Amino acid sequence: MKQKNAALVCFSGGQDSTTCLFWAKKHFARVEAVCFTYGQKHSLEIKIARKIADKAQVSFHLLDVSLLGQLAPNSLTDASIPIDTEKPEESYPNTFVPGRNMVFLTFAAVMARNKGIFHLVTGVSEADYSGYSDCRDTFIRSLNVTLNLAMDEQFVIHTPLMNWDKKAVWQLSDELGAFDLVRNQTLTCYNGIPADGCGACPACKLRQEGLESYLQTKNS
Amino acid sequence: MKQKNAALVCFSGGQDSTTCLFWAKKHFARVEAVCFTYGQKHSLEIKIARKIADKAQVSFHLLDVSLLGQLAPNSLTDASIPIDTEKPEESYPNTFVPGRNMVFLTFAAVMARNKGIFHLVTGVSEADYSGYSDCRDTFIRSLNVTLNLAMDEQFVIHTPLMNWDKKAVWQLSDELGAFDLVRNQTLTCYNGIPADGCGACPACKLRQEGLESYLQTKNS
Repeated sequence: MKQKNAALVCFSGGQDSTTCLFWAKKHFARVEAVCFTYGQKHSLEIKIARKIADKAQVSFHLLDVSLLGQLAPNSLTDASIPIDTEKPEESYPNTFVPGRNMVFLTFAAVMARNKGIFHLVTGVSEADYSGYSDCRDTFIRSLNVTLNLAMDEQFVIHTPLMNWDKKAVWQLSDELGAFDLVRNQTLTCYNGIPADGCGACPACKLRQEGLESYLQTKNS
Repeated sequence: MKQKNAALVCFSGGQDSTTCLFWAKKHFARVEAVCFTYGQKHSLEIKIARKIADKAQVSFHLLDVSLLGQLAPNSLTDASIPIDTEKPEESYPNTFVPGRNMVFLTFAAVMARNKGIFHLVTGVSEADYSGYSDCRDTFIRSLNVTLNLAMDEQFVIHTPLMNWDKKAVWQLSDELGAFDLVRNQTLTCYNGIPADGCGACPACKLRQEGLESYLQTKNS
């Protein structure tokens, strides 16, 4: 049976997807979260995601797509590859996992359909510094059509952060009443350190710059 | 490095994908095969696929996507669900595995990209009696665009059987010099019996009708 006012959120326990989880809670009567494990170095990420979902009183599902990490080498799943600290000029940083968002959203759609849920939420953003192709709006729209054709259904993929930089994401989490939770409990750092993180990796720098910028605006 | 004249075939060891394997061998200098296991009842399918790939002198890769069978109940992976022998009037037969071809082709593309291969081959056909949504040409074209956007690459998905019924597929296998191999060694039967199969399930009936029709034309 179709659950018209229900959504499934692709959820990692990071800043963006946690903000999306609270965005979904505001807009849908029933929200569930799906988290993907794919051989990331930091399994702490999953523990943190589960804990945040519990706090948000949202059902938490964990799907193992470790096949993805095995098929294409990348620095997030292969401990022998040091993480790029800068984006190479003519290619993606080696944190790019080819096909990742496509695999995540496809499995999320199969799971959602079986639950009668047709709203999917993902925290991808075009404003992301790396310009990953599978975070772009064009890709998400094309994927939405393809999913609908694949299963002859009417899924709607929501991307509340698509055009927003990290400063705006901090602001949104504040408006949703989740600022403290996002600041103190999420994990974004490539080195696996929660909250403010290591402070040195690209993900921490981006998060920190956005936070400082938001706090300046807020306090001025 | 890009392998311009190489193709990766989605291969199950059935009539259609075996015909596609030989089609690919005719059109590409280098061909590899990828086979997916997703909790099918008949693991014999995989043994047969491997044997045919060996005979065709094609590299054989096996990917485990059993997550798919776990996410959505269907009669191909759940032994407690009897297989529909007729298509229900207003829905798919319960042999429909939602998202199957999308998951297969997405993982195939990730694997292919890592090998420098950008031609993908699949044996889907619109003429298939069940009208599965993920066998339609529109879906495959949409998926092709989505894959290219996801990874910022130029994949080409080939569907040599798209508009052909089973009779025409028998004819193609004959033209490719693979008629006897397809007839005697492939496995299409839902009850897991190779070659002519059980003769009673929908897959066997379709295969048999096509074969008889082709042999009549050939011998007349």
